[in-house]
Amino acid sequence: MNIGLDMMGGDFAPLEAVKGLQLYLSGNLHAATLFCIGDEAQVKPLLEDAGISANAIQLIHAPEVIGYHEHPTKALKEKQRSSIAIGFHLLATGKIDAFISAGNTGAMLVGAMFSIKPIPGVLRPTISTIIPKINGGTGLLVDVGLNADCKPEQLNQFAILGSLYATHILKINHPKTGLLNVGEEEGKGNLLAQATYPLLKENTDIEFIGNVEGRDFFNDKADVIVCDGFTGNVVLKMAESIYDLTQQRGLQNDSYFSRFHYENYGGTPVLGVAKPVIIGHGISNDKAFKNMILVAEQMIETDLCGKMADTFKP
Amino acid sequence: MNIGLDMMGGDFAPLEAVKGLQLYLSGNLHAATLFCIGDEAQVKPLLEDAGISANAIQLIHAPEVIGYHEHPTKALKEKQRSSIAIGFHLLATGKIDAFISAGNTGAMLVGAMFSIKPIPGVLRPTISTIIPKINGGTGLLVDVGLNADCKPEQLNQFAILGSLYATHILKINHPKTGLLNVGEEEGKGNLLAQATYPLLKENTDIEFIGNVEGRDFFNDKADVIVCDGFTGNVVLKMAESIYDLTQQRGLQNDSYFSRFHYENYGGTPVLGVAKPVIIGHGISNDKAFKNMILVAEQMIETDLCGKMADTFKP
Repeated sequence: MNIGLDMMGGDFAPLEAVKGLQLYLSGNLHAATLFCIGDEAQVKPLLEDAGISANAIQLIHAPEVIGYHEHPTKALKEKQRSSIAIGFHLLATGKIDAFISAGNTGAMLVGAMFSIKPIPGVLRPTISTIIPKINGGTGLLVDVGLNADCKPEQLNQFAILGSLYATHILKINHPKTGLLNVGEEEGKGNLLAQATYPLLKENTDIEFIGNVEGRDFFNDKADVIVCDGFTGNVVLKMAESIYDLTQQRGLQNDSYFSRFHYENYGGTPVLGVAKPVIIGHGISNDKAFKNMILVAEQMIETDLCGKMADTFKP
Repeated sequence: MNIGLDMMGGDFAPLEAVKGLQLYLSGNLHAATLFCIGDEAQVKPLLEDAGISANAIQLIHAPEVIGYHEHPTKALKEKQRSSIAIGFHLLATGKIDAFISAGNTGAMLVGAMFSIKPIPGVLRPTISTIIPKINGGTGLLVDVGLNADCKPEQLNQFAILGSLYATHILKINHPKTGLLNVGEEEGKGNLLAQATYPLLKENTDIEFIGNVEGRDFFNDKADVIVCDGFTGNVVLKMAESIYDLTQQRGLQNDSYFSRFHYENYGGTPVLGVAKPVIIGHGISNDKAFKNMILVAEQMIETDLCGKMADTFKP
C-alpha cells in the first residue's frame, strides 16, 4: 500500500514530518510505502540526517506550499505544484491509497470534497475526534466542525460513518451509538435533536442507545456520539483546554488525561469521502505524524471507504 | 428583606435545607428574614435540632410537595398547597422578595414564567452558570438549557442579562462579552452565530469582544459567554463531569478544580423574570443552600431585576 504524506504541512514541518516518518519506519509492522511530498531541497537533507534511505520511501518534489491563511479553493487552484494539490492528484489517480497532511485544513477539506468526492449516497462528509474513556476505552465524537448547521438526515448518516469507523479502526464490536442531547428521554432537545432521534431509532445500520448528555462523553454509555458540528467543535476545543488545565494543575503524568493529548490520535480522518484523507493538527509533532500514518494504514487495510460505500449503496 | 426557601426541594430536603439555613444564620452578615416553606411536621423538629429559634425565621406550612417526575404545569395547578406553589404565591404578592427551591426544575421555570412573568421587553428568560477561570476570576455562561433553540435577538438579550448579572452579582466592571463560536473571525459559525454577531457588535449595553471558542471558557478572554441553550447545556454537564474526573484522578484538594463543584455556586438564577427566582441542583447540600440564599440576598440588595427592567424599558 502507498501512503502520501505532505512533508510541508504543520507548524513544525518538514522536520517533525520526517521524524514521524522515522518513528513509523522504526516500528516492526510498517506495511506501507510512504510517498513524501514536499520541497526536495528542504526534505532530502532531513531524510538523510534521519538515516532514512532513499530506497525506503518515494520522494515527490513539490515546489509550492499552501500557507495557513490562504483561501483554500483559490490556493488549490493556483498552486497546482503545492504539496497538497499534488497529494490529491496522486490520490485521485490511484498512485497513493491515502493522503495525510497537517497543512491548511480548508484546502484539505476542499481537496477531499472536490478531487476525491463524497461516497455516492453520502449527503455530507464529516470529521470526528477520539474521546478517551475513563475506563480505558476509546469513543468517537462526530461531527466536530465540518458541518456547523446540520439536517437530521445528515446526523443519521454521521452515525453510520462513525459506527463504521469505530468498528473497523477502533475495533469496537457493535459500537453503541448515542445522540448528544440535553436530556435522556425521547422528545428532549432542540428541533434538530428531536427530529434526528426517530431516524436513529429506525436505523438498522447502527446500534442506537438513545440520548446521551454532556456528562456522558467520558463514561461507557456510548461508543459513538453524534451531534452537529457547532456543538462538536465547542466540545472538542473544550476537551483540549481541559487537557491544558490538568497539565497546569499537576497531572502531567496522569495516564488518563495524557490520552487527551492530540498527538495520541494524530489527526482527523474525513469520513464519507471515497478515499482515506487524514487532516493533522497544525501543531503536529513526530508522534502525531506516526499515528496518522498508522491510522491511514488501518483505513487502507480494512478498506473502510469501500465498506462505507457498500453501506450507502442504494 | 424577605427570602422564601422551599424546605422540601432537593434530594436531601428538608435536612440539607435546614443545615444550609443554619450555615447562613451563623454567618456575620445575614440580612434577610427567611420564609421557610414546607411541611411543618417535618421541618419544625429539624429546625429545633439545629438550634434555629422560631423567632429567627418564618415557618410557612405547605402540606404538599411537587415530586421530581411530576408534570410541571399540571402539578403547579393541582397542588396549590405545595411548597413551590406557595412560594410563588408569596413572591407574586410581595410577601417575599426572592424565592429559592432545589425542587422540580420544570415547576420552578413554569412558576417563574407564569406567576412572576418576564420583564417587559424580554423575549425569553434564560438560565446561566458560573465558570471558574484558571486565573482566579469567575465567568458566566448563558443560556445553559432553558432555550434549546434560539433566535439571534434572544442571544442578544441573553448578552445583556448576563452582563448585568456579571456586573452586579459577580462584581465585574464592564464585563467582556463573547459569542461562543467555532472560530475567531466574524462570519464564522452556524447560521445562528452568524446572524447574532452583528447584533452583539451594535449592542451598546454590553462590551462585545467578538467570538470565543470552546478553548476559551476557562481563560480570561471573556467574562460572559453567550450561546444557545443546547450547546450551553452540553458544556455545563461536560464541565460537571470534568470535575468528577479530576476527583477520580487525585485532584480532590486542587484549589482550582474544587471551584467546579456545584455547591460553590449553589443554584441557577432565572434571568429576565421580574423578581429573583433561584433554582437549585437536585443534589443540593447545606453549602449549596447557603450560597443560594447569599445570591438571592445580593439580587435583592442590588435590585438586579429592577436594573434589568430599566435596561429593557423601550
